[in-house]
Amino acid sequence: MSVLQEINPNVKNMRQSMSTVLQRRANQLKKELAQGARKPYKDVIDVSWGDPHRAGVKPLSFVRQVLAACLYPQLINSDKLPLDVRQRAQRLLGQCAGGSVGSYTATAGISDIVHRVSEFIRKRDGGVPAHPENIYISPGSQWSLTNILKVLVNAEASPRPGVLIPVPCHQTTILSIEGLGAAVIPYYLREEQCWSLQVEELRRALESTKSVCNPVALYVINPGNPAGYVQSRKSMQEVIQFASEKRLFLLADEVYQGCVYGENSEFVSYKRVLAEMGPPLSDTVELASFHSASKGFMGECGLRGGYVELVNVDPTVMKYIYKLFSKDSCAPALGQIALDLMTNPPQPGDPSYPLYDQETNQIRTALLENVKRACEVVNSLPGFSCQPVEGGVFAFPRVFLPPKVIQRAKEVGMQPDTYYCMKLLEEVGLLFSPGCEFGQKEGTLHIRFCIMTPRDTMEETLRRLTSFQTKFMKEFS
Amino acid sequence: MSVLQEINPNVKNMRQSMSTVLQRRANQLKKELAQGARKPYKDVIDVSWGDPHRAGVKPLSFVRQVLAACLYPQLINSDKLPLDVRQRAQRLLGQCAGGSVGSYTATAGISDIVHRVSEFIRKRDGGVPAHPENIYISPGSQWSLTNILKVLVNAEASPRPGVLIPVPCHQTTILSIEGLGAAVIPYYLREEQCWSLQVEELRRALESTKSVCNPVALYVINPGNPAGYVQSRKSMQEVIQFASEKRLFLLADEVYQGCVYGENSEFVSYKRVLAEMGPPLSDTVELASFHSASKGFMGECGLRGGYVELVNVDPTVMKYIYKLFSKDSCAPALGQIALDLMTNPPQPGDPSYPLYDQETNQIRTALLENVKRACEVVNSLPGFSCQPVEGGVFAFPRVFLPPKVIQRAKEVGMQPDTYYCMKLLEEVGLLFSPGCEFGQKEGTLHIRFCIMTPRDTMEETLRRLTSFQTKFMKEFS
Repeated sequence: MSVLQEINPNVKNMRQSMSTVLQRRANQLKKELAQGARKPYKDVIDVSWGDPHRAGVKPLSFVRQVLAACLYPQLINSDKLPLDVRQRAQRLLGQCAGGSVGSYTATAGISDIVHRVSEFIRKRDGGVPAHPENIYISPGSQWSLTNILKVLVNAEASPRPGVLIPVPCHQTTILSIEGLGAAVIPYYLREEQCWSLQVEELRRALESTKSVCNPVALYVINPGNPAGYVQSRKSMQEVIQFASEKRLFLLADEVYQGCVYGENSEFVSYKRVLAEMGPPLSDTVELASFHSASKGFMGECGLRGGYVELVNVDPTVMKYIYKLFSKDSCAPALGQIALDLMTNPPQPGDPSYPLYDQETNQIRTALLENVKRACEVVNSLPGFSCQPVEGGVFAFPRVFLPPKVIQRAKEVGMQPDTYYCMKLLEEVGLLFSPGCEFGQKEGTLHIRFCIMTPRDTMEETLRRLTSFQTKFMKEFS
Repeated sequence: MSVLQEINPNVKNMRQSMSTVLQRRANQLKKELAQGARKPYKDVIDVSWGDPHRAGVKPLSFVRQVLAACLYPQLINSDKLPLDVRQRAQRLLGQCAGGSVGSYTATAGISDIVHRVSEFIRKRDGGVPAHPENIYISPGSQWSLTNILKVLVNAEASPRPGVLIPVPCHQTTILSIEGLGAAVIPYYLREEQCWSLQVEELRRALESTKSVCNPVALYVINPGNPAGYVQSRKSMQEVIQFASEKRLFLLADEVYQGCVYGENSEFVSYKRVLAEMGPPLSDTVELASFHSASKGFMGECGLRGGYVELVNVDPTVMKYIYKLFSKDSCAPALGQIALDLMTNPPQPGDPSYPLYDQETNQIRTALLENVKRACEVVNSLPGFSCQPVEGGVFAFPRVFLPPKVIQRAKEVGMQPDTYYCMKLLEEVGLLFSPGCEFGQKEGTLHIRFCIMTPRDTMEETLRRLTSFQTKFMKEFS
C-alpha cells in the first residue's frame, strides 16, 4: 500500500519521546519484581509523571463520593454519604440530559457547570468579568490547547506559522505544535535567576526566526512545568506588552495555579493582569488561559477534564473554535463534574467541609515539606544544583555529569541525562524524566521528578537518589 | 490583531451544523416550558442524537455499580453491591496506576483492558487473531478516527488527499475530514435498495475526482448511521476488493455492531471478512475498525470510551499513530472501564447476570418494537417513505414535501428539511435532525430520529409526528 509514502509529514516529524523507553523498562522491572526477581529495591517509584495518585496521593473523599453518586444514583438515597454530597449529586444529575452522566453534553460542556466555572474565574480574578460563552470544557487542557492551535496554525501558509515556546517546556505542547506543522520557536528561561522569563530573550527568539516562519502565538507556562517558577506581575506585564507589540496570540498554561508555595510567590492569572493594565491592551490582546482538574490537590488526571477561557477573541474566530470543539462531541461528563467540584469545593459549615479541609491540608503540608526536603537534599548532593521551587509539582534540578558519563552515554547512543535516568531506574528503582525531554540550554543537563507525593514516598525517593548519586559520582570521577 | 486573517483555512471551511440552530431553539423551548409557558405539548422530546440515556433509556445497573465502586472503593467492602461487581472493581483498580482511576493510563489504554478487548474481538470474529498492540482506546471512536485520518492526510500534498464517504453519513466524520484539509469524495448509497452500497458507485465517485484530489481512504459505516442498513458479506467482499485494487485505506465505522435486528441481517466485521478472503488480500488491505461504549445497549456516551483496531498497517506508520495518541495523554479511565464491561459482560452464573440479562432484554425488546412501530407508522403517513431499518439506532425516512413548503423554506433561508424539523419542533415539541445534515441525493429530503428510546417515548413521538404530518400536509397541499 502507498500509505507510508504519503503519510502526513507533520506527523512524521513529531519527535519521539524518550520517556517511552524509560517507561517501558520500568514496566518490565515492575513485572520482574512482581514475579519475585531479586533487586536492590522492593519497588519502582514512578515520579516521572505529574500524576499525584500514581505517586500514592489519595483522592479527595468529597470528590469521589459525588462522582460515585452521580454514576449510581441509588447512593443519593443512602445515608452512608454526607447530605451535601447527595444534594450536590442530585443537582448535577438534574443538569445532565436525561438525568444521566451517560448522555452527551453540550459541546462546551454542561451549561450550568460552565457558568459556575466562569463564576470561579471571576472570583479568582478579583471581579474581572468572565463570560460563560468564552469557556470550553474539554478532555484535559492539552486537548483545548491543540484545538486553539489548530485555529491559529495555517500549515499551508508560507512562511509557515510559528509558536514561541519556553525552554524548558513539557513535551505535549511541543508535540501538538509539531503535529500541526507549525514551527517551534524556543525562548530560554534564565535558570540562574529562578528560571525567570526575560523579554529581551523573547525579542531575540523572535528576531532569530524572521525569514523562517511567521510567529503567531506566544506560549507561557505559569506556574512552571518542568521548572517550578512562579511569574511575577511585572514579568507578566512585560510579556503582555510584548505580545501586543508583536501581535501574538497569548497562550497561558495556568494548570498549576492551585500549587504555589514560594514565600514571596502568588499566582495571578494572565487575564487579571491584562484586565488591570487597562485599554487599549485589555481590549485587544488575544488570550487563551488553560486550567485542569488533573492538576492541583485534586489530581484527577484519569477523569480528563480541563477548560480554556478565551479573551478578546474575534467573534468570527470564536465560531470556528466552536466548530472544532463540536467535531469531537464533548468532554467526559465526569471530568466536567470534577471541574465543577474543583472550582466549587465544600464551604465551612457544609457537612463535607471538615474532612475535605483535613485531606487538602494534609496534601498541602506534605507538598510543602517535600519541596523543602527535595531542594535541601538535592542541593546537598555532589553534582546537583536546584533552583528554588515556588510552584507546580516538579523539581527540575541541574545535574553535572562527569565527562566519563557523557562519553559512556554517547557509546550507548543515549542523551547523557537519559542515560543517567536509566541508571537511576536500574540501580535504585527510581523513575525520573531526563531534561532532554523538555529542552535545555546546550551544555546543561537536568532531571525532573514529581514532588506531589506522600511524605514517606518522597523521603524514600531522596534516600535512594542520595545513595545512588554518591556512588555514581565516585564511580565515574 | 491579525489572527482572523491568518486563521487555518481548513477550519474556516468546515461546514456549520444546522442541528445547532435546532438544538438552541429546543433548549429555549424547554426553558419556556419549565417556566410555565403554555404550549400544545408538555415537553420537548429530543430524539435527534444517538444518545439512549438522553432519550430516557436507563443505564445498566452492573455497569454503573462497577464504575461507582472503582471511583469510591469503600463500596467494594459494602455488602450493598453484588459480589461479582465488587470483585470486578477490585481487579480493575489493581490495573490502574496507584490503584486509582484518577491516574493517567498508558497511551493506548490500561494494558489489561486492551488485552481483554482484543480477546473480545477474537471471539466475535470466530477466532481471527486480534493483537493488543494494534488496539488504541480513545475518548470516543470519532476521536480515534480523527487521529488515523491525521496520519493519512497530508494537507500539503498536491493534489490534496481525498476520503470516500457514504451519502448519507453522520456529520462528525465529514467535519474531521474537512478540518484536516482533505477532500470529501461522496458516494451515494442506493436508498430504494435498502441503502445498499454498490461498487459501481464507488468506482464512479473515484473516477469523478481524478484530477481534483488523491483518494487515500474509503470510509464505510456498518451498521448504518443515519440510514439503518446492515451490509451483507458479499457487499463487504466487494468493498475490500475495491479498496485493494485502488490502494485505499479502509476505515470501518462499526460502532453499532451490537444493534442488528433485521430478520435476515447479521453483523460481520470487516476484519473477519478480510481474514476469510485469505491472502494476498488478508495480508495487505490496511484496515481500521472503530467501536465504542457510547453505542449499543450500554449507551454510555458521556463516559467517552471507544477504540480502534488496526490491521495490516506498516510498523513505521504504527509508530506515528502511537505518537499521535500519546500527544493527548490518554482516554478517560472510566470510559476505558466501560469498554471493558461492554466487551466482558456478566456471564450466566454470575450474581449480576439475572439483572443484567433482564435489563438488556428490556432495551432490546423495546428497540425491536420501536423499529417495527416506527416503520409501520411512518410508512402509513402521507408524504413519507421509510426503508426497512435493519440495524443501528435511527430511522431515516424520506419525506416528500409539497412545493409550497419548499418555497416557504426558501423564503426564510432554510433547507426544506431543516424548515420541516423546525416546524415539528415548534408545533409538537419533537426534535429530529434534517437530512441535509447528513447529505442526500439531490431532490430528496429526509429526517432522522433515534429509535433507541423507552417504548412509551416512541409511541408519544409517533403520535405527535402523525398528528403534525396529517395537519401539515393538509395545510400545504
